[in-house]
Amino acid sequence: MHIDKAALGDLACGAAFLGSGGGGDPYHNRLIGEARIARQGPFQLIGLDALADDALVAPCGWIGAPAVSIEKLPNGSEAARGLRRLEQLLGRRVDAVLPIEIGGGNALAPLLAAAELGIPVVDADGMGRAFPESQMSIFSIRGLSACPSVLTGPCGSLAVIETPDNHAHERLARQLSIALGGDAHMVEYPLTGRQAKDHAIPGSISTAIAAGAAIRAARANGAAPFEALFAALRGSRLYPFAGVLFDGKIVDLEREIRDGFSCGNIVIEGFGGAGRMDLAFQNENLVARRDGTVCAMTPDIITIMDRETADAITTDRLKYGQRVKVVGAAAPWMLREAHALALVGPAAFGMADPYIPIETLNPWRTA
Amino acid sequence: MHIDKAALGDLACGAAFLGSGGGGDPYHNRLIGEARIARQGPFQLIGLDALADDALVAPCGWIGAPAVSIEKLPNGSEAARGLRRLEQLLGRRVDAVLPIEIGGGNALAPLLAAAELGIPVVDADGMGRAFPESQMSIFSIRGLSACPSVLTGPCGSLAVIETPDNHAHERLARQLSIALGGDAHMVEYPLTGRQAKDHAIPGSISTAIAAGAAIRAARANGAAPFEALFAALRGSRLYPFAGVLFDGKIVDLEREIRDGFSCGNIVIEGFGGAGRMDLAFQNENLVARRDGTVCAMTPDIITIMDRETADAITTDRLKYGQRVKVVGAAAPWMLREAHALALVGPAAFGMADPYIPIETLNPWRTA
Repeated sequence: MHIDKAALGDLACGAAFLGSGGGGDPYHNRLIGEARIARQGPFQLIGLDALADDALVAPCGWIGAPAVSIEKLPNGSEAARGLRRLEQLLGRRVDAVLPIEIGGGNALAPLLAAAELGIPVVDADGMGRAFPESQMSIFSIRGLSACPSVLTGPCGSLAVIETPDNHAHERLARQLSIALGGDAHMVEYPLTGRQAKDHAIPGSISTAIAAGAAIRAARANGAAPFEALFAALRGSRLYPFAGVLFDGKIVDLEREIRDGFSCGNIVIEGFGGAGRMDLAFQNENLVARRDGTVCAMTPDIITIMDRETADAITTDRLKYGQRVKVVGAAAPWMLREAHALALVGPAAFGMADPYIPIETLNPWRTA
Repeated sequence: MHIDKAALGDLACGAAFLGSGGGGDPYHNRLIGEARIARQGPFQLIGLDALADDALVAPCGWIGAPAVSIEKLPNGSEAARGLRRLEQLLGRRVDAVLPIEIGGGNALAPLLAAAELGIPVVDADGMGRAFPESQMSIFSIRGLSACPSVLTGPCGSLAVIETPDNHAHERLARQLSIALGGDAHMVEYPLTGRQAKDHAIPGSISTAIAAGAAIRAARANGAAPFEALFAALRGSRLYPFAGVLFDGKIVDLEREIRDGFSCGNIVIEGFGGAGRMDLAFQNENLVARRDGTVCAMTPDIITIMDRETADAITTDRLKYGQRVKVVGAAAPWMLREAHALALVGPAAFGMADPYIPIETLNPWRTA
């Protein structure tokens, strides 16, 4: 399979939705990717089943505050330096990369990394959405180690982390990302092909492309882009429920960079005084309350989108006055198991509310 | 040369003085060192001239907030794990270690590290005192790289840093030390034997031992311990001037752990209303003002000592009400050159005052 310019645009659009507000705005990575395609042709995508069991697969992406990444641009060498260092550490070549998260710019960055090394990207990812912390990956949920991991940043800086504890790894990587200027490239959870096949969220890149393509086609045909998106998500095996949670205007927005994350709160007022929605985010949107009652919570996807164009608005691009729809989607089932919820559910973010599936809270038509 | 139990005690005493308040209280390392000597005999110390030009010499010590180190004890494997990892990185054995700083507990920790590997400690160090930041070493002053460096912490955590910029290295290492619980072991500035001979502060371990021995002998003989210390320092080629800056009682002490450092301010009131002294510290005492006028400043040594016993009180052990003498000593000349002052002088700590040598500010008898 190949990702050409149109598919890259669709991936950027679909991944921005799947990011639940996080993963970073895909805009820069899309531009760099388009330039690369114009110069050297499309990106190479392979399915999980194309991996040899003993292949070395390197999940990668950027760690940091998305609000930083839109001002501090990469120099372009970060990913390749990190991957080459992993090869040195493990004494062998990396056979393929995959996005550690399918959300936002982090869905696209591994394409650039792979092209740099002349290797393919695997149609899969480590989170099925975006999450703010490294241990919130399916690989960690399934007991695999994040280490050795390699962080690279500006001016030739590089760090290798080794620790048996994925939470300790997150703390170390987070502090390093702060010292590297607020975001850094990270190669982590090095996998065998067998581990990737057993644990990675399968098909998430092609699902993101399909979601983006559905929105693009609807726009071109004058059809309703949100309905097209929901149909594409429901059609995937990963995101079986999706729908609108709220429709209104952003009337309040608090944002700060705290402990290396973009954190904040959003208030959206319904049109014509039709209620309000409160959202809290830590890089990603984590919980949505409609008139004070929870209507969606992590790990389910909560994305704020432009109400006309259906462009997802990542948390770093939110602004007062934006007229938006808040859209929700069920997370992939692997993230909803009890031991997964311990790492990615509400309790993992210090919330007292028990997890209730988004389709229980919002009985959407599934026709 | 060997360091037996008596010499270890003298080293702890002398290094606590040379630390200018920092380097960590040597108490724990002294106890661990005594146990090691009882079990396996004295530590092996060699002179710089015993190093082959192509030897691999590893400066090492603990990085973090001294106030943390007195509560969070090492598990004992940190140093050996870091040194072994450096050997892996460089593809050869480490031939000898040296203290990155001769101050406080960091003068003793490398003895334990060396004994663990069965190699000697070099009679030299990287700072001629203690400083709070990694790039404040003679090796950095002379243009050598801190990298690769290896940090090790509790529970098997380890990180390798590579960066061409020693200030960036400090930022990365500092953030890692925070994530590792507030202090961590670090192997840094790997040197050839030639580089160690050209740049390390020579003889600082034996000078610290001599200073400690002078205090011990004076106590045993009922002589004045401070005068004995000053005579020992003046007799060394490293610390040609030393004397008392102030005598009084600690009446105010502000301390906080900020950005991974122990920072604070101290007010000492002279006995019988004889003026006051204000000191500011960042791990180490940095500047002393007598009745509002600077009387000593970094890189010169400023150490608060018990006024009866002449025991140095590291910044992590300061308490309201302690009756103390504040003692100063000239820093080794290598730290007083113009390009050295840029890294370790008052400007490096954001102070506007120009550096004035302590012997100019305090015309002590040098007889």
